[in-house]
Amino acid sequence: MNFGIIKRTLGWILLFEGLFFTVPLITAAVYWEEEFFDIFVAMALCAACGGVCIVGKPKNQNIYAKEGFVIVALSWIVMSIFGALPFWFSRSIPSYIDALFETVSGFTTTGASIIPTGEALESMPKCLLIWRSFTHWVGGMGVLVFIMAFLPLSGARNMNLMKAESPGPSVGKLVPRVRQTAKILYLIYAGMTVIQFALLLFGEMTVFEAINTAFATAGTGGFGFKGDSMASFSSYTQIVITVFMLLFSVNFNSYFLLLRGRMKEAFNTEVRVFFAIVITAITLITLNLQLSEAYTYTTGEAIKHSAFSVATIISTTGFVTANFDLWPAFSKGILVLLMFIGACAGSTGGGVKVSRVVILYKGATHEMKKMLHSRQVTNVTIDKRVVDREVVQNTFAYLFAYILVFVLSFLLICIDVQDVVTNFTAVTATINNVGPGLGAVGPDGNFAFFSVGSKLVFIFDMLAGRLEIFPMLLLFSARTWKK
Amino acid sequence: MNFGIIKRTLGWILLFEGLFFTVPLITAAVYWEEEFFDIFVAMALCAACGGVCIVGKPKNQNIYAKEGFVIVALSWIVMSIFGALPFWFSRSIPSYIDALFETVSGFTTTGASIIPTGEALESMPKCLLIWRSFTHWVGGMGVLVFIMAFLPLSGARNMNLMKAESPGPSVGKLVPRVRQTAKILYLIYAGMTVIQFALLLFGEMTVFEAINTAFATAGTGGFGFKGDSMASFSSYTQIVITVFMLLFSVNFNSYFLLLRGRMKEAFNTEVRVFFAIVITAITLITLNLQLSEAYTYTTGEAIKHSAFSVATIISTTGFVTANFDLWPAFSKGILVLLMFIGACAGSTGGGVKVSRVVILYKGATHEMKKMLHSRQVTNVTIDKRVVDREVVQNTFAYLFAYILVFVLSFLLICIDVQDVVTNFTAVTATINNVGPGLGAVGPDGNFAFFSVGSKLVFIFDMLAGRLEIFPMLLLFSARTWKK
Repeated sequence: MNFGIIKRTLGWILLFEGLFFTVPLITAAVYWEEEFFDIFVAMALCAACGGVCIVGKPKNQNIYAKEGFVIVALSWIVMSIFGALPFWFSRSIPSYIDALFETVSGFTTTGASIIPTGEALESMPKCLLIWRSFTHWVGGMGVLVFIMAFLPLSGARNMNLMKAESPGPSVGKLVPRVRQTAKILYLIYAGMTVIQFALLLFGEMTVFEAINTAFATAGTGGFGFKGDSMASFSSYTQIVITVFMLLFSVNFNSYFLLLRGRMKEAFNTEVRVFFAIVITAITLITLNLQLSEAYTYTTGEAIKHSAFSVATIISTTGFVTANFDLWPAFSKGILVLLMFIGACAGSTGGGVKVSRVVILYKGATHEMKKMLHSRQVTNVTIDKRVVDREVVQNTFAYLFAYILVFVLSFLLICIDVQDVVTNFTAVTATINNVGPGLGAVGPDGNFAFFSVGSKLVFIFDMLAGRLEIFPMLLLFSARTWKK
Repeated sequence: MNFGIIKRTLGWILLFEGLFFTVPLITAAVYWEEEFFDIFVAMALCAACGGVCIVGKPKNQNIYAKEGFVIVALSWIVMSIFGALPFWFSRSIPSYIDALFETVSGFTTTGASIIPTGEALESMPKCLLIWRSFTHWVGGMGVLVFIMAFLPLSGARNMNLMKAESPGPSVGKLVPRVRQTAKILYLIYAGMTVIQFALLLFGEMTVFEAINTAFATAGTGGFGFKGDSMASFSSYTQIVITVFMLLFSVNFNSYFLLLRGRMKEAFNTEVRVFFAIVITAITLITLNLQLSEAYTYTTGEAIKHSAFSVATIISTTGFVTANFDLWPAFSKGILVLLMFIGACAGSTGGGVKVSRVVILYKGATHEMKKMLHSRQVTNVTIDKRVVDREVVQNTFAYLFAYILVFVLSFLLICIDVQDVVTNFTAVTATINNVGPGLGAVGPDGNFAFFSVGSKLVFIFDMLAGRLEIFPMLLLFSARTWKK
């Protein structure tokens, strides 16, 4: 294990986090909020610790697979530990574990909160609200990817970092150089965020609200600033958010290909399957709401609410316009299923990812074909390209590791809380980085009532979900630390 | 597709089923019950249809993998369709779909019932109660395996039938000849059933009760004859049942090896993991019950009930001594987890099977090792033997197919019933062939209130679970029927 390079990278992470604090700092200055000083102290601490860590260049500059996983997992943990400080210093969130929960939920773009919806949220200082949604934006595309775009970290081995931090079963370099790839991704990301911000301004949102919403949508996070999330905004604003939640769920490689005019490649299997799932889910939920006599939505309302809910859940954002916890079981079942499926790989969304579901499905049907005709040697293909056998195996292993983490987390939460639906969907909503679940953690609820132990489980799950399970598991494996 | 051999095998199945009807027929004669005639008519119908089907020897006697799956799936369906007749003819179960549900639940050793616990069950004719538990015994080891033991079906290709009907990822022939293997398995099975029957007679059970209980335990089915299942029997009887539920969950190959004195091979990884899970689960549930203030069990009672419940659930039998639906969430969570894990491969129990869980776990950790040291070429090993890469892949494919069937079933049931815990555990209890779930299908409930559509879904799930998913899926695949 190359500890030198790990320390140095963590140092850079902290220095950049110090830089990120300028966003809430400026907000505090603009609105003349006293939390300015809390943020300033957190910033200074970040810079000081970061500065100490980057002193002295390590002899060995190589980042192998092992170091890649460890650096990514530790980076996200360290970043969250420091990111929680402004909440805690300012007493906006008096318990440090709660502040950490909120920050991890921010960076991992989960959006699960310990702050009660309603009054408590609306009375939060604006600088801290901006910090919450900015953590979504930073976490969405990945901090290490961000740093890579600006800093020549350690040459050719950066790919191992990018692999470990980027969502999805395989990372394709858009252009031969990793650094250039990272830059292009962030340019697309920033560009789309600005477009959404501008479109929101055309509606009734203030600049502050539009920035917040754009950050939280782009990262598919879902931290809001209003007691009822997005319910009280106009249909125009809700539709803009619906569309952008879906856009940020698409693999960013597709946008790159679109910009280059490679239409056919852009609309690959994953993207087509993603939109097929979205349209099917909206149709089924709309029908279910219209056919159940208990709901009085007009057809238009039913379509709007089901479209928003499907978009917010499959993109794993977590904004809400309607309390879907009160919907019929079939609609709730579909939404929970979408939480697991999640967005496309290479987007800012969470979940298992559509491309993994496609690989698993193709892998399973391929096995069934082999059972019928045992002598035929064939391959799993997607978009007419053979999927490497290693990728298929790794995806199945991911599925099992994911189930294992899910089951253990669920059992641990059950020691604390007795409502199994709440527990099941709370784990679902955190490990898939969605935010709201059903029951006590539904759109009207929050995560405050869980014990400290449960909150630590959720913190682990949010990180495991965002970093795609393996880096967090490897962090706790003796084999990782062995020579 | 070799339709000739399929027709002929189905014919033999029906002839043997006619033979099986002698068990309830004799019971009806002994107890002088008027249902004698209903059973007799069902028997005659079976024999007649069977006789017609076996006329004319097909030219091609080969059963390839494809035919193996189709024969197994159709056999179980046809067997259930005819097996349901006595319930329906006698008006004991007035709806045919309900009768079919009950029979499929019997043959697949599920034990889920549409008959309300209590009065309704206890007033059932003894001949039908015996038929219910006898379907468990027949289904436990497999009908085709039974037929193979007595009939030279079609020579060397029988292995494809046995593979498709036997539970678990891989079937080992105990001795070189398939027919001999089938005979040995049934001898061990019958021997253990007789021993349990004798031990139950030492307690307070009548001969009728002991036969019923032994059949239902051996098949790990769980159909009872008392309104409170096994709750009102003595501790002696409950302990005998607990022990035998666990014994029938062990791979029968292990007993064969034990009889040959090959101790070390008998206690292989799967058996050791199985008992480790059982002991851990009993300990955790006992602690959970003792530490929760809401429960007034003495320590002895807590151990007895948790041991019985763990045994009944992991063996997927379904007898009950305590209403675990009222237990704390953590205990319920563990029991639901055990429903999924299930018994050992090659036993009469259901679920995913311990050996599959071991293969999945080893496969996933193996992938993690590869992620750390990409150049090392290693293999997944169990009991110091390399597990064929194909077996690992097939097991992962099984996991995905299993999840797919589970999710679709759950969504379909949600259209019918609004309680998600009931729906989730109802699917869990049927696809894993357990019987009772939680909520409305808990130990005090039954499956009568579901719609006909939901019952058809459960029937599919019970068959899919017993036949390990693939044969039922392949039955609905166009590729199977293509030339």
